[in-house]
Amino acid sequence: MGASQTFRLPAAREGANLEFSGCLMSNKQDQPRFSLPIRVYYDDTDFSGATYYANYLKFMEHSRTEWMRSLGIELDVLRRQEGLLFVVRRAEIDYLRPTLYDDRLTVTAELRAAGGASLDFLQEIHREAEAACCCRGRIKIACVDARTMRPRRLPARLLAEVAHVR
Amino acid sequence: MGASQTFRLPAAREGANLEFSGCLMSNKQDQPRFSLPIRVYYDDTDFSGATYYANYLKFMEHSRTEWMRSLGIELDVLRRQEGLLFVVRRAEIDYLRPTLYDDRLTVTAELRAAGGASLDFLQEIHREAEAACCCRGRIKIACVDARTMRPRRLPARLLAEVAHVR
Amino acid sequence: MGASQTFRLPAAREGANLEFSGCLMSNKQDQPRFSLPIRVYYDDTDFSGATYYANYLKFMEHSRTEWMRSLGIELDVLRRQEGLLFVVRRAEIDYLRPTLYDDRLTVTAELRAAGGASLDFLQEIHREAEAACCCRGRIKIACVDARTMRPRRLPARLLAEVAHVR
Amino acid sequence: MGASQTFRLPAAREGANLEFSGCLMSNKQDQPRFSLPIRVYYDDTDFSGATYYANYLKFMEHSRTEWMRSLGIELDVLRRQEGLLFVVRRAEIDYLRPTLYDDRLTVTAELRAAGGASLDFLQEIHREAEAACCCRGRIKIACVDARTMRPRRLPARLLAEVAHVR
Repeated sequence: MGASQTFRLPAAREGANLEFSGCLMSNKQDQPRFSLPIRVYYDDTDFSGATYYANYLKFMEHSRTEWMRSLGIELDVLRRQEGLLFVVRRAEIDYLRPTLYDDRLTVTAELRAAGGASLDFLQEIHREAEAACCCRGRIKIACVDARTMRPRRLPARLLAEVAHVR
Repeated sequence: MGASQTFRLPAAREGANLEFSGCLMSNKQDQPRFSLPIRVYYDDTDFSGATYYANYLKFMEHSRTEWMRSLGIELDVLRRQEGLLFVVRRAEIDYLRPTLYDDRLTVTAELRAAGGASLDFLQEIHREAEAACCCRGRIKIACVDARTMRPRRLPARLLAEVAHVR
Repeated sequence: MGASQTFRLPAAREGANLEFSGCLMSNKQDQPRFSLPIRVYYDDTDFSGATYYANYLKFMEHSRTEWMRSLGIELDVLRRQEGLLFVVRRAEIDYLRPTLYDDRLTVTAELRAAGGASLDFLQEIHREAEAACCCRGRIKIACVDARTMRPRRLPARLLAEVAHVR
Repeated sequence: MGASQTFRLPAAREGANLEFSGCLMSNKQDQPRFSLPIRVYYDDTDFSGATYYANYLKFMEHSRTEWMRSLGIELDVLRRQEGLLFVVRRAEIDYLRPTLYDDRLTVTAELRAAGGASLDFLQEIHREAEAACCCRGRIKIACVDARTMRPRRLPARLLAEVAHVR
């Protein structure tokens, strides 16, 4: 009988994302910066050889989603149980350096401000072992009613988590 | 023997994109505004039922590409014959209203400024028969050397075309 | 005041998709073969320079969707009014020749068989002016209840349309 | 100074993918079955609420890529140093059960046959803790010259690895 081998994606090397000076990003207080490792696969690239520019928005969303999950907030549960949805209201993206097929990226998600129904993120994408920022985004998301799409107050659990930037 | 039937995608209704007052977009001079009709398919949507936010960047690129083609500039020829590539340097996107599966959109591309090696576009996405803007982007693209990724002067043909906004 | 210019995607050249002998596809009776022109954009390619292989499944779906629409069947209306959804049950795809950025493709959709709750398609993708088939798929789709995902009888209008292959 | 927190994607639970009886997949010898955990994100779904059918091909490719990497074969190095590329020649996919947003999947890659220039995989996708197979694919890939796209012999290192199924 065959044994089963589960492959574990290697996390970014320890400390690899400590220095972000190339991005002039100051981190208020001693708050940890959330960082998700992502691999660039075939389908993320285009014929120029580099990552297709719209796909960085997917990477940033994956990082925000995992940040929420790390706080115990599952977006799917939120939608089914409370009828809440997060939608992107505005995105500002600077494309600074290309990333390539097979690159190992770290995609940060740092909350910079919060309103009663919205969250503002600063997000950066680095190639794993490099200080230089490849892509930087400021993403504003809003909490809305899944049915009416009207703004709704952030869930209490999240409001408590983000109190320090309100 | 079977005949072959070629299906022609219906273009946006004439005049459908004349009124953009909801977007406060003034059109300098009498310059025509380029507009590409695009259908929202299954793969453009996500489980919220609306178009996935990163896909608007694809739609905007398709419109810019067809705008170039309407000027006689084929991006692939440019790359193979002159070693030139266009890359996005910065994108600012406002998501104003959702669009849905099966929607027929018009995606505009209006050149607002041009440098020696860059082009600035204002782009808007409307549902076909509606005045309200669903998504508005300001996209800065740069002309670069396909090998070194360093800035390169826009091709002469394009420089002539964009002289009015330089 | 600015005039508005609507860009019309050029349909495939007349007759371009008449000869499919390279694909050994015989067309029963005198039934027209549905064909949708599709342009390969940046985001459809990968770093190999060719169209990414999963994207042909999107192209084939777009063609099936427009075939349905040409019969007066709108998938979104079907879902909202009758609670019906079409899902893919099986796909067999042969990748015969690469297609490239900027290529103009024709994507056919030919119904080969129909059950009470399913449709079998033969679909081919050609570069516009070429007889050789680049990609050929056999796609089986099923009509299901949007809520339970259980098989449901095809809508009457569609059953009438597909009677010749049942 | 801010500390950096690297988020580690949780691997599939131990043993979660041991029982595949629902798929009638027999595993020759005692060879381990490669398995990659993948999370379903927003951009993987469509408006039906389930994962879009073409995206399973991406997931399967990611698993094949990581399988190769686990053997010490980096596709990008192969291309740059030896001019070799892997392309998909044929895919047969059965869609058995939907998967949903936020699902944690395991995507297997099991080599079933090998030629001098080709590899045949059986691949299955399961929701993490469930025995039932959601999607099963048989994927034939070919090793080709990156420039001419003609078949080329598999690299020696890989030939040695796959000797047991030749």
